[in-house]
Amino acid sequence: MIHQTRLFVPAITPFKADLSVDTARFVAHCKLLLEDGADGLAPFGTTSEATSMSVAERMSALDALVDAGIPATRLIPGTGCSALPDSIALTRHALAHGVRGTLTLPPFFYKPVSPDGLFASYARLIEAVGSDSLRLYLYHIPQMTGVGITLDLIGRLTTEFPGIVAGLKDSSGNWDNTAAVIAAFPEIETYSASESLLVRNVAAGGAGCISASANVNVAGIMALIRALGTPDEAARLEAVGVIRALFEQVPLIPAIKATVARRLSDPDYAITRPPLMRLDASHDAAILRACALCFGGNTP
Amino acid sequence: MIHQTRLFVPAITPFKADLSVDTARFVAHCKLLLEDGADGLAPFGTTSEATSMSVAERMSALDALVDAGIPATRLIPGTGCSALPDSIALTRHALAHGVRGTLTLPPFFYKPVSPDGLFASYARLIEAVGSDSLRLYLYHIPQMTGVGITLDLIGRLTTEFPGIVAGLKDSSGNWDNTAAVIAAFPEIETYSASESLLVRNVAAGGAGCISASANVNVAGIMALIRALGTPDEAARLEAVGVIRALFEQVPLIPAIKATVARRLSDPDYAITRPPLMRLDASHDAAILRACALCFGGNTP
Repeated sequence: MIHQTRLFVPAITPFKADLSVDTARFVAHCKLLLEDGADGLAPFGTTSEATSMSVAERMSALDALVDAGIPATRLIPGTGCSALPDSIALTRHALAHGVRGTLTLPPFFYKPVSPDGLFASYARLIEAVGSDSLRLYLYHIPQMTGVGITLDLIGRLTTEFPGIVAGLKDSSGNWDNTAAVIAAFPEIETYSASESLLVRNVAAGGAGCISASANVNVAGIMALIRALGTPDEAARLEAVGVIRALFEQVPLIPAIKATVARRLSDPDYAITRPPLMRLDASHDAAILRACALCFGGNTP
Repeated sequence: MIHQTRLFVPAITPFKADLSVDTARFVAHCKLLLEDGADGLAPFGTTSEATSMSVAERMSALDALVDAGIPATRLIPGTGCSALPDSIALTRHALAHGVRGTLTLPPFFYKPVSPDGLFASYARLIEAVGSDSLRLYLYHIPQMTGVGITLDLIGRLTTEFPGIVAGLKDSSGNWDNTAAVIAAFPEIETYSASESLLVRNVAAGGAGCISASANVNVAGIMALIRALGTPDEAARLEAVGVIRALFEQVPLIPAIKATVARRLSDPDYAITRPPLMRLDASHDAAILRACALCFGGNTP
């Protein structure tokens, strides 16, 4: 096994009623996720509504995490924007904090994008950051970006910039793609976006998961990681799968935020920024069930 | 006819070799487009690579146009970003210059977006800008955004914020959609994204076009507008159609930039920012032909 199995949580970003970033709740929740036992955090991802935040808001929120004593080495912040200067600014800022790496979307407005154009986007970013310390995690989420991270792209980047590409998060939900990335590039850390794929991910040589539902189920997912290869594995996998399946029947990000809000008896955690909408009461039963499964002592 | 027929040019954004914004060439080209006879400019659109620019770069480039003496009342700058605070900042900035209006993309990362989420994005923008002077042109380009402007959305916005929604640009290429918008909302200015649809647009009650190829064919398109309803109309429509068809066979934005570069004998105009790639030499013949048609005195 090349890679230790790890869980990074794409932490939600709480907002205030006026839709400004709620830094205090953000820091509190991130600390809680680490206290829950997560290996680290991947803030400013899709679950974090990062593409709905300005560059200044993202920098300020990262500063707040570090200022609060969260070790930068446990952070893989998202830094990919549609505009290259923004991606460069965020990546430099994160690197200056000494983060473990950055999880970086491709530019996501133009589609289709040529292979050369996609390569040039990452190449210019790497060159502009200009640091051997950069550890880039490529973010494959074609259902949002319309632009996928191909095996060819990974190959070109690892050849041109040895040691810089540290990993990939595969949010496509397509296991065959994840398996192909791991098989072709076993030296990089390939993460699945769902804990339901964790057993397959690790068996194939992957590095673990970066999962939205980890915002509410660190304990369950870490229990699965500890159970890998033991007789308890199947039961733990089933348990996280029940919770994951519950969230796949509701608007995922609003439901995760609503579940955090319910856990902490703090409704403001449920606030989203447009275009995402706060979960309405029609989903209350699902959220109650999620809370019972995640925090009610009912997990097996 | 409610609306005067107008051509707004989504002006290209020139970049320097280091990929920074080339403000001098930007201003020079924008002035040239107005000298060519365009009614106005719609800078910072898709053709302008605006989503590849930072907020600060976009503000600075707009400042430069106004500082150069281009009347703000002839400008409909693009202000829509994936992050609402960025869209608010750009819209406020444009409005402070006294622009005719802003052409505003919906947030374009998350998909699908609920009708309520899409409405909330524009509603929050309008409320945050907080000015009766705001004239919002909705930008429908679902092939890039993954999020379309629906009739229902236009209806909700015009009901909730009377007088604010001034128009729509339909870049879908779907004439039936354009016709439906014009029929349902004849009071707003509906623009087509191709001059090939201009005759149909105006006949249906639309307001003209905002077309990428206008960067190289203001004269031809303005000649078509002058010929509307005259015996010369068909020949003028065919002439612009030949040029438009040429550009539809090559990567559109890089080809437009290459044609501008050839027109001005200034190769730097051809520089694009990733993820778009500068046109390679394999397209030289097409660009030469476009130049001959647009600037060689060969247009009928």
